[in-house]
Amino acid sequence: MQIQKSGKTHFLYIEQGEKVMESLTNYCKEKGINNGRLSGIGAVRDIEIGAYDLESKSYLKKQFEEEYELISYQGNVTLKDGDPFLHAHVMIGNKELKTRGGHLFECEVAVVGEFILDQIEGSAKRELNPNIGLATWCLE
Amino acid sequence: MQIQKSGKTHFLYIEQGEKVMESLTNYCKEKGINNGRLSGIGAVRDIEIGAYDLESKSYLKKQFEEEYELISYQGNVTLKDGDPFLHAHVMIGNKELKTRGGHLFECEVAVVGEFILDQIEGSAKRELNPNIGLATWCLE
Amino acid sequence: MQIQKSGKTHFLYIEQGEKVMESLTNYCKEKGINNGRLSGIGAVRDIEIGAYDLESKSYLKKQFEEEYELISYQGNVTLKDGDPFLHAHVMIGNKELKTRGGHLFECEVAVVGEFILDQIEGSAKRELNPNIGLATWCLE
Repeated sequence: MQIQKSGKTHFLYIEQGEKVMESLTNYCKEKGINNGRLSGIGAVRDIEIGAYDLESKSYLKKQFEEEYELISYQGNVTLKDGDPFLHAHVMIGNKELKTRGGHLFECEVAVVGEFILDQIEGSAKRELNPNIGLATWCLE
Repeated sequence: MQIQKSGKTHFLYIEQGEKVMESLTNYCKEKGINNGRLSGIGAVRDIEIGAYDLESKSYLKKQFEEEYELISYQGNVTLKDGDPFLHAHVMIGNKELKTRGGHLFECEVAVVGEFILDQIEGSAKRELNPNIGLATWCLE
Repeated sequence: MQIQKSGKTHFLYIEQGEKVMESLTNYCKEKGINNGRLSGIGAVRDIEIGAYDLESKSYLKKQFEEEYELISYQGNVTLKDGDPFLHAHVMIGNKELKTRGGHLFECEVAVVGEFILDQIEGSAKRELNPNIGLATWCLE
């Protein structure tokens, strides 16, 4: 991963073969970035995305092995069990420009990964919400 | 809605059963946030989205009652008739990860609603453009 | 194009009939904005988008002439050959709210074009990566 920082804004270039969620999470942990916002575009492969099923309190997941455009990546960084934790949703597009999208578990950069992280000074955190079955934002 | 503010950046957690556009609009009105940018992810239901038809100067609307991933929410805050007004477009995804999207009228949080608002000091406003049939940005 | 600037944040209203990539690129060149982030929503037509094919090192392109909602526009500004260069991905939706998306070559505003540009002080640039066949971010 290549990095360029300007104030609280970080340009993060994730290179071919590097994992997106792992690279960004490690970066936040190393730099002590507890809260933030992430956006990004690029082209990725070996994508695992899902949709949450509230009734079963679990994610329905699908894998996409081939190369897809990363049309939209929107994410946030909050604290979970004391460590920076990323939550991101993505839209991907195939060579026919057809789209799929959902909660991103992981993907690998196939061509380029151009991400921008805004570091936010805050202590927003997640705690398990048993009714929902997920660690949800606790802001107050 | 839970809130955490860091400078001009607001983490806004819209909880299960709360309406997204109503909650965010009320927040901007209460806090006097006249201009801003919004992004967000989550899972929503009872969604009304549409596409503008320039010829008839009206929106073609559709309802989606079930639970959908909120894959992308992009919006802005400007003044309309003196009050903060939100304009947002969304991408939603179903359990098969298939997507739909358009102009968001309203939706309700089904699982979580994680939004980030950047307050912008400005006086950008909207005024009715009769040729378009919508209140459009007036910046100068 | 109408403009309103607040600190490093620029509200940019691209009007009916104006080209999106051309207008935003010219703005960055005129104002000397070398690095930045762009987001936007609106409704566009005469859209050319594509997906990169790593094997042939070329984009597979498609044209969409009709009016589409611009559901998501995510882009960044870096330097290429010494000039500001925009890279953006978009999601578009038709009147049935069905979606397509990919790398944006160009489109024209059909109804409105509401963009927000964050100027970033930096020197992030692109250089041709022969293995990839594109000018990719060089941050270090």
